[in-house]
Amino acid sequence: MQVALVMGSISDWPTVKQTADLLTELHVSYDTHVISAHRMPQELQQFGESAKAEQYQTIIAAAGGAAHLPGMLAANTTVPVIGVPVQSHALNGMDSLLSIVQMPAGVPVGTMAIGNAGAKNAALFAAEIIALQDSDVDQQLQAYRKRQTEEAIESNAQLH
Amino acid sequence: MQVALVMGSISDWPTVKQTADLLTELHVSYDTHVISAHRMPQELQQFGESAKAEQYQTIIAAAGGAAHLPGMLAANTTVPVIGVPVQSHALNGMDSLLSIVQMPAGVPVGTMAIGNAGAKNAALFAAEIIALQDSDVDQQLQAYRKRQTEEAIESNAQLH
Amino acid sequence: MQVALVMGSISDWPTVKQTADLLTELHVSYDTHVISAHRMPQELQQFGESAKAEQYQTIIAAAGGAAHLPGMLAANTTVPVIGVPVQSHALNGMDSLLSIVQMPAGVPVGTMAIGNAGAKNAALFAAEIIALQDSDVDQQLQAYRKRQTEEAIESNAQLH
Amino acid sequence: MQVALVMGSISDWPTVKQTADLLTELHVSYDTHVISAHRMPQELQQFGESAKAEQYQTIIAAAGGAAHLPGMLAANTTVPVIGVPVQSHALNGMDSLLSIVQMPAGVPVGTMAIGNAGAKNAALFAAEIIALQDSDVDQQLQAYRKRQTEEAIESNAQLH
Amino acid sequence: MQVALVMGSISDWPTVKQTADLLTELHVSYDTHVISAHRMPQELQQFGESAKAEQYQTIIAAAGGAAHLPGMLAANTTVPVIGVPVQSHALNGMDSLLSIVQMPAGVPVGTMAIGNAGAKNAALFAAEIIALQDSDVDQQLQAYRKRQTEEAIESNAQLH
Amino acid sequence: MQVALVMGSISDWPTVKQTADLLTELHVSYDTHVISAHRMPQELQQFGESAKAEQYQTIIAAAGGAAHLPGMLAANTTVPVIGVPVQSHALNGMDSLLSIVQMPAGVPVGTMAIGNAGAKNAALFAAEIIALQDSDVDQQLQAYRKRQTEEAIESNAQLH
Amino acid sequence: MQVALVMGSISDWPTVKQTADLLTELHVSYDTHVISAHRMPQELQQFGESAKAEQYQTIIAAAGGAAHLPGMLAANTTVPVIGVPVQSHALNGMDSLLSIVQMPAGVPVGTMAIGNAGAKNAALFAAEIIALQDSDVDQQLQAYRKRQTEEAIESNAQLH
Amino acid sequence: MQVALVMGSISDWPTVKQTADLLTELHVSYDTHVISAHRMPQELQQFGESAKAEQYQTIIAAAGGAAHLPGMLAANTTVPVIGVPVQSHALNGMDSLLSIVQMPAGVPVGTMAIGNAGAKNAALFAAEIIALQDSDVDQQLQAYRKRQTEEAIESNAQLH
Repeated sequence: MQVALVMGSISDWPTVKQTADLLTELHVSYDTHVISAHRMPQELQQFGESAKAEQYQTIIAAAGGAAHLPGMLAANTTVPVIGVPVQSHALNGMDSLLSIVQMPAGVPVGTMAIGNAGAKNAALFAAEIIALQDSDVDQQLQAYRKRQTEEAIESNAQLH
Repeated sequence: MQVALVMGSISDWPTVKQTADLLTELHVSYDTHVISAHRMPQELQQFGESAKAEQYQTIIAAAGGAAHLPGMLAANTTVPVIGVPVQSHALNGMDSLLSIVQMPAGVPVGTMAIGNAGAKNAALFAAEIIALQDSDVDQQLQAYRKRQTEEAIESNAQLH
Repeated sequence: MQVALVMGSISDWPTVKQTADLLTELHVSYDTHVISAHRMPQELQQFGESAKAEQYQTIIAAAGGAAHLPGMLAANTTVPVIGVPVQSHALNGMDSLLSIVQMPAGVPVGTMAIGNAGAKNAALFAAEIIALQDSDVDQQLQAYRKRQTEEAIESNAQLH
Repeated sequence: MQVALVMGSISDWPTVKQTADLLTELHVSYDTHVISAHRMPQELQQFGESAKAEQYQTIIAAAGGAAHLPGMLAANTTVPVIGVPVQSHALNGMDSLLSIVQMPAGVPVGTMAIGNAGAKNAALFAAEIIALQDSDVDQQLQAYRKRQTEEAIESNAQLH
Repeated sequence: MQVALVMGSISDWPTVKQTADLLTELHVSYDTHVISAHRMPQELQQFGESAKAEQYQTIIAAAGGAAHLPGMLAANTTVPVIGVPVQSHALNGMDSLLSIVQMPAGVPVGTMAIGNAGAKNAALFAAEIIALQDSDVDQQLQAYRKRQTEEAIESNAQLH
Repeated sequence: MQVALVMGSISDWPTVKQTADLLTELHVSYDTHVISAHRMPQELQQFGESAKAEQYQTIIAAAGGAAHLPGMLAANTTVPVIGVPVQSHALNGMDSLLSIVQMPAGVPVGTMAIGNAGAKNAALFAAEIIALQDSDVDQQLQAYRKRQTEEAIESNAQLH
Repeated sequence: MQVALVMGSISDWPTVKQTADLLTELHVSYDTHVISAHRMPQELQQFGESAKAEQYQTIIAAAGGAAHLPGMLAANTTVPVIGVPVQSHALNGMDSLLSIVQMPAGVPVGTMAIGNAGAKNAALFAAEIIALQDSDVDQQLQAYRKRQTEEAIESNAQLH
Repeated sequence: MQVALVMGSISDWPTVKQTADLLTELHVSYDTHVISAHRMPQELQQFGESAKAEQYQTIIAAAGGAAHLPGMLAANTTVPVIGVPVQSHALNGMDSLLSIVQMPAGVPVGTMAIGNAGAKNAALFAAEIIALQDSDVDQQLQAYRKRQTEEAIESNAQLH
């Protein structure tokens, strides 16, 4: 698989599904995993350590609150990790965002916007990385971007 | 040792030293460790997993930024983990605080104030837990609290 | 009783009930109290002062807004106080969190996450403290943590 | 005395001194006290309970961080309590402000701005309350306000 | 009248009504006004300037967003002004709070909590000021506070 | 004069001077005023009311903290008011920004960035408005923008 | 047309419609455009570059989240750009506000309040600019402001 | 070149230099550019549009305040864009962070931490992407990560 799509809890699925659907649309192959950083720390570490051998080209990790999943996966691999801050209940995802993006020097996580926009952009960002080597994905990506520009232009035309 | 005093980076020592000094004053035995959640994830996990066998009664973990150390230690043990948010450069420790305190249900971290106040209170909170079984520590704690009340009363008297 | 479970207002009960239920599940004995820091300051002080004699091993205090209850209980006792920031109306519990966690050096409160996650974790953290001396609670706690790991692993399995 | 000027710690004096100096200038009589909410809870309660008998017409209370002093004084008296949020180290007084101003319904604290501006305004606000009955203070207050308007007008004139 | 109860817009009435009802309960006389700082600046200034002659003992001013009403009233009078930050749409009243409380040195506003709690406390704070001279209001206030303490104690009793 | 440049306090001059210097550079005529919203409310109102008769084409108003000056000027005139949030001590200008920008519907203030960047941009924005009718200012503005683009391009060239 | 009314996405229309309706009421001519900064960057640049030639006297640009539309339009023209921060999902428009208002020195955007209030005020601010040269718009604006003052006075009268 | 390293202003160089030095250390080839989104919008667009033809495998873009550079580059290319929020003066980089990370669905930017930590991690993240195809960079990256783990372990050893 090209992408590992990991969520901290099955309750994050409504957000993560948007990533999955867009990866499918972009012809990026992926598998999905629930790995709770706090409930499954051993699985988390094993997953991170084996990610390179599994030949994942990108890991997308979504989590909320004190969101440690993306950063801890990144700590265990050099496969690029994309973090998606899930919108949390009390603080609207500001806690998720800061817990993911404010990584100390040495271990990077490429962080997306809070919630659905971030979930979709994680798929696009993964596709951009994979498209560097995979011309089919590149073609899909170009087509997707072109389509979305046309739709925006179209909505402008309909306004008039 | 009664307490494991863990910091995410040796650069956290100025904060953590305040915990160490107060633990000494309160007759609580401890050892100190640098365990970077992101640079030493294997050591972090081993440390957490063996904490109960080591018979630590409390772990105090200080970290800054996307501070994953306290939460990930807590994920690997049921020894009570006390988190100290180190004051970070850009966001003054608000990122450290939210990354530590906003733990999801299932894995608790007892979080202290940002910076020096939190570092000192971590020692006092650890002593409170240990004092439930250790009458010497309890006595030191009562004396410390009495002394600090007397000092506050004294500063009031000197004002007049 | 092993734990005193205190709330600032009866309106905090929906949050606090989650602590209560989990304490029961973990075989931790507790009693519940409404003590408004601002409406019942005398009762608050008496409660704090007698907590040690009552042999509580932990006090869990939940409050919202300018949440003074946990800190003022801690000011009157050396029994470990766990603070739960109740989600407030206007500021979503950020006021509750800062009012509880930012305690000055000298009087610690072990602070949990805002709202329900924090309420559950308060029970787990109390159980961790009590488990240091009570092997039944320790067993329940180990079982609980094991169960929640298994459930997370199970939700991963069901995803596939 | 007309005003009790209370600070949570002698370290708050640089802020509180600005209140004191302005009270003097406005002919308001006052006495000063260090009463730490967390280190001197008994003194805090006694002070609050006896404030009315002492015939204070206003209490000014300055504190920082999880600032419980103003609210807990207000909980123990119906003498009007004016709160001054001292600028804290990590969060610049935002924690002090929220801990003082976000009081639950039932116990009010009239909150001023963070830091020096708030300290001065606490004196003016106390003088406004006292001036309702004390014509000398009223006169001083009118003169002070007139003077500060003239100085502002003067600084405008000098600009040209 | 003892109190002028001013709101920035008739849409603030649901919040302000809670102040009005409590003033009535406390035997404080008041009249109500809509004075938009931005739509009725002349009326605002005239109102402020005549407040002392009208012998108001306190002005309560509620406003939301860039809430200039309380501060501008205070700029035009030395009658004590109590500010109530109305909960705003986008920023939940944080903008209202900062616009009211962060007054520069020279012109104080005694600020209450955001929203309903603040609206009720404004009535109590006004009553505390008036009670310094009005023994009936003082009696009502003592009774109110006693009642609310009894209700809190009662809710504790019912819990058991 | 084309622009009235107003500051809430002479202490705002270091910020406002940057506006003044840039207005001069852009050939925009202006005069400067200190008008404290809270200390000189009468002057504020008179200034606002006469602004149109004075044929100002724009008012630039800089203020900090609970910054009421721009909004209250706008309340008294339909001359376009540009607001500059001065960087405040405790909250770094976030209070200034929200007090200026969050104006209720009906009275607009065109708000700039906090501090020096905003002070300079206020001059440029005023010049843009005036350039709609004044071809000299328009020419200066075009030249300024061209120059700053060239300088940016030059700094890129020097990098290589 | 006097005003170009631009939105980043057709989904911003409910907010932008309030600007449009008020522009109509004020006799300001305008046309509307959907130009996504991120999906239509070429169109954005062309629009900005031709704005002066099109003789727009003001551009109103509404966008949410990482709102780049107003600033990038301003980067491509010296026609005054008014920015309206659309209320975003997770962060309530605080991200939109900061992305629009915190422009670096050199390229100004006159920023309005978040959401509907800002949308209406954008129309009023544009009208204020246009009224400097267009006496009909000026008359409409004076009438609008007079009417809104009368309505506020009326709501005060009805209260009594 | 494998990486284009772009900054919004030459004043960002102290931050960006840390990215440059680390890219060199990791054997990643790069060139550096100053492209101000607001002062050089044409160059920005041309740069974005030609990035793919230039065969950049990643663009790293650093900017502060209303930081539009990373998002606008991403709008013009499908080469992966990594955003570095430069620490701003007033708001400490919170404005930079939100302006970069809160991108709408459709155009992703992989966002790093505020300031120096983010600058270094941008180099590491770029190297992770490039290492998917470049075994020399991969080797350097593995060595770097190993070294940093060893240094952390060493600092732990020295503590004892």
